[in-house]
Amino acid sequence: MIRTIWTATAVALVATAAAAQDDAALREEALSWFEPIPLNPPDLPDNLVTRDRVDLGAMLFFDPRMSASGLFSCQTCHNVGLGGDDGLPVSIGHGWQRGPRNAPTAFNAVFNSAQFWDGRAADLAEQAMGPVQAGVEMNNTPDNVIATLMSMPEYVEAFETAFPGEENPVTFENFARAIESFEATLITPNSRFDQWLNGSDGALTDVEKAGLNAFIEEGCASCHNGINLGGQDYYPFGLIERPGADILPPGDRGRYEVTKTVSDEYVFRASPLRNIGLTAPYFHSGAVWSLEEAVAIMGSAQLGIDLTETQVQEITAFLETLEGEQPEVVHPVLPRRTETTPLPSDF
Amino acid sequence: MIRTIWTATAVALVATAAAAQDDAALREEALSWFEPIPLNPPDLPDNLVTRDRVDLGAMLFFDPRMSASGLFSCQTCHNVGLGGDDGLPVSIGHGWQRGPRNAPTAFNAVFNSAQFWDGRAADLAEQAMGPVQAGVEMNNTPDNVIATLMSMPEYVEAFETAFPGEENPVTFENFARAIESFEATLITPNSRFDQWLNGSDGALTDVEKAGLNAFIEEGCASCHNGINLGGQDYYPFGLIERPGADILPPGDRGRYEVTKTVSDEYVFRASPLRNIGLTAPYFHSGAVWSLEEAVAIMGSAQLGIDLTETQVQEITAFLETLEGEQPEVVHPVLPRRTETTPLPSDF
Repeated sequence: MIRTIWTATAVALVATAAAAQDDAALREEALSWFEPIPLNPPDLPDNLVTRDRVDLGAMLFFDPRMSASGLFSCQTCHNVGLGGDDGLPVSIGHGWQRGPRNAPTAFNAVFNSAQFWDGRAADLAEQAMGPVQAGVEMNNTPDNVIATLMSMPEYVEAFETAFPGEENPVTFENFARAIESFEATLITPNSRFDQWLNGSDGALTDVEKAGLNAFIEEGCASCHNGINLGGQDYYPFGLIERPGADILPPGDRGRYEVTKTVSDEYVFRASPLRNIGLTAPYFHSGAVWSLEEAVAIMGSAQLGIDLTETQVQEITAFLETLEGEQPEVVHPVLPRRTETTPLPSDF
Repeated sequence: MIRTIWTATAVALVATAAAAQDDAALREEALSWFEPIPLNPPDLPDNLVTRDRVDLGAMLFFDPRMSASGLFSCQTCHNVGLGGDDGLPVSIGHGWQRGPRNAPTAFNAVFNSAQFWDGRAADLAEQAMGPVQAGVEMNNTPDNVIATLMSMPEYVEAFETAFPGEENPVTFENFARAIESFEATLITPNSRFDQWLNGSDGALTDVEKAGLNAFIEEGCASCHNGINLGGQDYYPFGLIERPGADILPPGDRGRYEVTKTVSDEYVFRASPLRNIGLTAPYFHSGAVWSLEEAVAIMGSAQLGIDLTETQVQEITAFLETLEGEQPEVVHPVLPRRTETTPLPSDF
């Protein structure tokens, strides 16, 4: 009996030691591909992120009066309660139009090398200028945005505080910088994966570690790496096998629309995978609701392999561990309109 | 010189004493009409407001998946950053349809004797069941709401916690009760008017006190009284002089649609006036953007008097003092969908 207990303990100890060794090796490999999300927002080039700038950005992010109709704000499509996107295949915009592509999450977007599915904006400030003007989204103009902001003394004061010393702080560029500042705070550190990367062996289960191993070994990490496991470079969708037109609509030629270079046809930014379990549906078309299905499609389309059902389940289990601490956002109280505030259009 | 100072001081003291006496008389009169907003939400009949119930209600209030399209939540038309409404003449709803009436504020709505412009809902729980099903608003069905909630374990757990001991807590009635619980917390105490009602003479300026006096003397308080200065009873719009069709559209017969009684034609609930400076545009038609204009129209339509420009300005100044402390709301992190969550419709 005593012998049995001793043997069992020894086996357990040996197994634990072996597992710890496995963890160390896998972690070393993983750290050559990936990086944990830092606890604090990063510094931004060309934008000094102050508390005043973040607070102003939060107001602008949540203010539907930044859209022509008065219905849409940044928050509509980048919902801070829904993992930073809207959970729709493509967004509903002005006049009930549908956007051309799935809304990407605003969470951790500050770590992407460029913004939008085709990377046509260099940073979040440039990105923020897009939807507000897009006819199928907020359908506004920079002039009307500025007129709206200038009509409300609370906004004018907030711009003066956030951009001290500037003679005319209420500009479309500063509007974008403030939104970028707020969005830079929308990061999700301390996912179980990051805890494990930081040395906590028990933060992942064996199945999840197997999934991580497959994610690296099968080649997923070749495109999905860095802090965001994606978002850092461009790749043709359908590199090996082109998916059906429902998933890769032939009318949307991706980065070709930006560069007009034939080799950029159907090229898209590798999707960042942080919080991917929260941001269904998937792909730029938003055509796939199941994460397992998305993983299987990626295997055949990008890697030319039929992942086994077990591999798909393990990789999906690993991807679920990328869910970080969601940001806590207090809904801002928005400045009151005045008699000079432009009226919502279409009324 | 000493005599001059003494005289000036004496005059000032006498003036202060006289003003204090005036304040006391006006306050006594005002307290016979109005009541300050309490610091804490009131008890509700048929609904035990617990922290768990409020938290669940906040999730439901902010969750656009409660609408058929996935675009609209309660928050869309009752924006906690915009004084509890949407700042539009009438709301934009499913398929870009327009609602028939201006969205009333959710703030302090718990103090109204009934909900909607025509009082067709007895309380906030009954109210909450309306927009979610209205074809021009969220266009959903109770069955689909329940299926959506049941598909997400985090929601099921939150219902079990908020409604302990119930065998099937995820019901449409409990959905409504939870939203009512959250909305009951959306109160705005400590307006300058309430500070003055509570004894702080300096909380209102002389112009604002003159406005309050006119509000009572000219008869506004006959309909707009109680905690919310309105929201407690029904009156014909155009009692003395019917406003133009732009302000009182002939197709909307008000409470007649509820009671089918001829005497209820063009009868509406007296609008609650708390935070009225934040909730333009005005009237059930949302046709008037200027509070001064709205005050003047009320004078002629309801009281049969042409208020002088000074009276209009003073009454408006008084109404601005009804702006209370806006609620601080943390945007809830919403439960994650699962593979059994119903898809948004129209996709």
